[in-house]
Amino acid sequence: MANLLPTAPYRGTRDFLPAEMSVRHQVFTTLYQVIEGFGYQRYDGPLLESAEIYEAKSGRELAEMQLYTLTDRGDRRLALRPEMTPTVARMIAANASALQFPVRWYSHPNCFRYERPQRGRVREHWQINVDVFGTDSPRAEIEVFHLVHDMMAALGATRDMYRLRVSDRVLLDGVLTHVAGIPAELTGQVSALIDRWEKMPADQLRADAKGIGLDDDAFTRLSETLSRGAQVIDQLPEDVLAASKLAEVLDLAGDDLFEVDLRIVRGLAYYTGTVFEVFDADPENNRALFGGGRYANLAGLFTKTPIPGIGFGMGDVTLFNFLDSHGLLPAPAPALDVSVVAITADQFDAACDIARRLRAAGLRTATPLEHRKLGKEIQRSEKAGARVVIIIGAKELADGQAVVRDLRASQQQNMPLDDLVTAVTDLLGGTTGH
Amino acid sequence: MANLLPTAPYRGTRDFLPAEMSVRHQVFTTLYQVIEGFGYQRYDGPLLESAEIYEAKSGRELAEMQLYTLTDRGDRRLALRPEMTPTVARMIAANASALQFPVRWYSHPNCFRYERPQRGRVREHWQINVDVFGTDSPRAEIEVFHLVHDMMAALGATRDMYRLRVSDRVLLDGVLTHVAGIPAELTGQVSALIDRWEKMPADQLRADAKGIGLDDDAFTRLSETLSRGAQVIDQLPEDVLAASKLAEVLDLAGDDLFEVDLRIVRGLAYYTGTVFEVFDADPENNRALFGGGRYANLAGLFTKTPIPGIGFGMGDVTLFNFLDSHGLLPAPAPALDVSVVAITADQFDAACDIARRLRAAGLRTATPLEHRKLGKEIQRSEKAGARVVIIIGAKELADGQAVVRDLRASQQQNMPLDDLVTAVTDLLGGTTGH
Repeated sequence: MANLLPTAPYRGTRDFLPAEMSVRHQVFTTLYQVIEGFGYQRYDGPLLESAEIYEAKSGRELAEMQLYTLTDRGDRRLALRPEMTPTVARMIAANASALQFPVRWYSHPNCFRYERPQRGRVREHWQINVDVFGTDSPRAEIEVFHLVHDMMAALGATRDMYRLRVSDRVLLDGVLTHVAGIPAELTGQVSALIDRWEKMPADQLRADAKGIGLDDDAFTRLSETLSRGAQVIDQLPEDVLAASKLAEVLDLAGDDLFEVDLRIVRGLAYYTGTVFEVFDADPENNRALFGGGRYANLAGLFTKTPIPGIGFGMGDVTLFNFLDSHGLLPAPAPALDVSVVAITADQFDAACDIARRLRAAGLRTATPLEHRKLGKEIQRSEKAGARVVIIIGAKELADGQAVVRDLRASQQQNMPLDDLVTAVTDLLGGTTGH
Repeated sequence: MANLLPTAPYRGTRDFLPAEMSVRHQVFTTLYQVIEGFGYQRYDGPLLESAEIYEAKSGRELAEMQLYTLTDRGDRRLALRPEMTPTVARMIAANASALQFPVRWYSHPNCFRYERPQRGRVREHWQINVDVFGTDSPRAEIEVFHLVHDMMAALGATRDMYRLRVSDRVLLDGVLTHVAGIPAELTGQVSALIDRWEKMPADQLRADAKGIGLDDDAFTRLSETLSRGAQVIDQLPEDVLAASKLAEVLDLAGDDLFEVDLRIVRGLAYYTGTVFEVFDADPENNRALFGGGRYANLAGLFTKTPIPGIGFGMGDVTLFNFLDSHGLLPAPAPALDVSVVAITADQFDAACDIARRLRAAGLRTATPLEHRKLGKEIQRSEKAGARVVIIIGAKELADGQAVVRDLRASQQQNMPLDDLVTAVTDLLGGTTGH
């Protein structure tokens, strides 16, 4: 006999057993409902895409480091999608003439990144992507921020549990130049430094700043500027303010909706305007949960028509860590509401009939596949989550009755078969979660 | 500027735009509810698995032909799953000691096969997998057949639209030996021939039969035997009947539930007992929609404990072809129920407030992100599927009112803001599909 193969999933990927799946399903369904409530429509696309659509953005070398790639027999270089944006850009470009812009779309794909697995990072993750395509309006920012808050609220998170931190590339450049006094030729390198701001110790930042030509005074001034949030905006000249969408958003929506925080950068290759991150407010777990931003031209690889947009991607791993650490995960739903048990094989058909009627009434109902002693079967039903067991015996059946046992109350009574569905539905009190 | 990249998805894969996604979502949700109604619980697993778990079953050469494989930097040979069974076998083996067998599980993964795309075959498809693990009981067959019929019925298919055709390896061997008079050493090759029975012209079958040693008489006898369905069972000796689960299933369930049809084989590498297929009954489209069977030992690669089971996999492509050709596809749900339109920017905040209240009542509600003329905006709302537009003007707002326009009836009236949610809910008549 051959050796047995290992039963662990591939490194960085996960098996989801039914209990965990049920929790995930409840969380995701809640989020889908909120997102669809705003009029967003779900789409989906292939897991395999041409590798070049990722390499075009981040360069082939970097892409190869993080991409799972393969070559098919037609010599096409393919990649397992590391993110959904290039796919949706392709789809939007292909269908642009038939779409009524702005469009509101969302998806929930699995994505692959070849990373060293660690807390919050896996190789296959599931990411909810929400985007508005085809508008420059600052109302899109406002809608997306409201959507973020409504999604968090629907999961049970209160505003003190997380922070919505928002910056803007245009505003940051203006602040660096006009408030922090950074020479224009250094703003790119300084932005990259700010992108690492919260991930590195201050000494290291100071040393890196020196490396790109900022002396201690300049570094201190930069540091002080970044810590002042929205206040620095008042110091900007009119023409910079006029060019910044975030300034417009603040005018329209006030500052209750989010915090201005210029330390939010989210890389440099991607977004061109507004950028935002949702952070866990717990000081023990002070990290980004998810984020997004605005791009001036989503689908430049696929079409000459500039299509602006704003959106975000919410990965499952950090989200579930957050929900878990704040006690917000729902309980798994039980597999069953009702178990219908025949005392002998002669009552099996009757049990199946009753089970069918209960199912038709929306109750998750099973009949045992194997014959066991009644006490054993009741224990098993209870373990499967059933709250009611219906026992079908020869004598009761001859009288047109069955025994209905309420497992929580540990009570049972005989009932006419015709009343079973109503009686059991009442007993379960409409809280079946089905 | 670089050349634009093509916008078509990779060959054999599909983009799902929102309208199609909505149809798919409705069909799948219906199926999930039926499956969960029987007490089956959903699980999920990784798309990437060790390539050897597929190669072990079908041999490395065959596997490589149909598998998408890649090698990671740790020199692990991985495959994009072509099916879910090896994954779930791994999961069941890993968790066997904590599970209460028999377990009822289902999943809905995307799977990859490297095939030449053609009608009914794509390279990435979505397959609903339903299995009972850990029982030899013929009641499992009966349950699975009832589940199949309930799933089809829930999609609107009547029993005349499809056929559930069932065979059994043990029974087939008995029939070949004891009824068709095939020598025991040829039953393997003859089974393989029967597996091609409905895919090849009779002449070709006859020639192939000759190639394995069946003369014309033997071929005619075989042909006649296969066409007789359940009747041949009566000619079998007792010991063969006693070994066949399907005979037991027939005893318990009668023959209304399915047709016995010994031409159903479903390959030879996989199932060890009952095999079944659901066929489109339309003579124009006479093909298998989906199928499954029983295996004596599911997880032999991963554990020494034999785990029997029965299950089936239902792919999306053939299912949607069937639903389409029988006129059973639901209409796509509209993106919106209600659109709330501010006449000038001054009413935007009020419009957002009203939209929020409508969403809280479960209505999919959007506010325009850009300012357009009212007539244009009403047209756009209608195109997005909204049946109601709420118009917020300065004068009405000052009176605590808004205009509610019913797009279907082409009527509108002023209404107090406090009554809006109730009035619009009534207007939509609870048929929002949300």
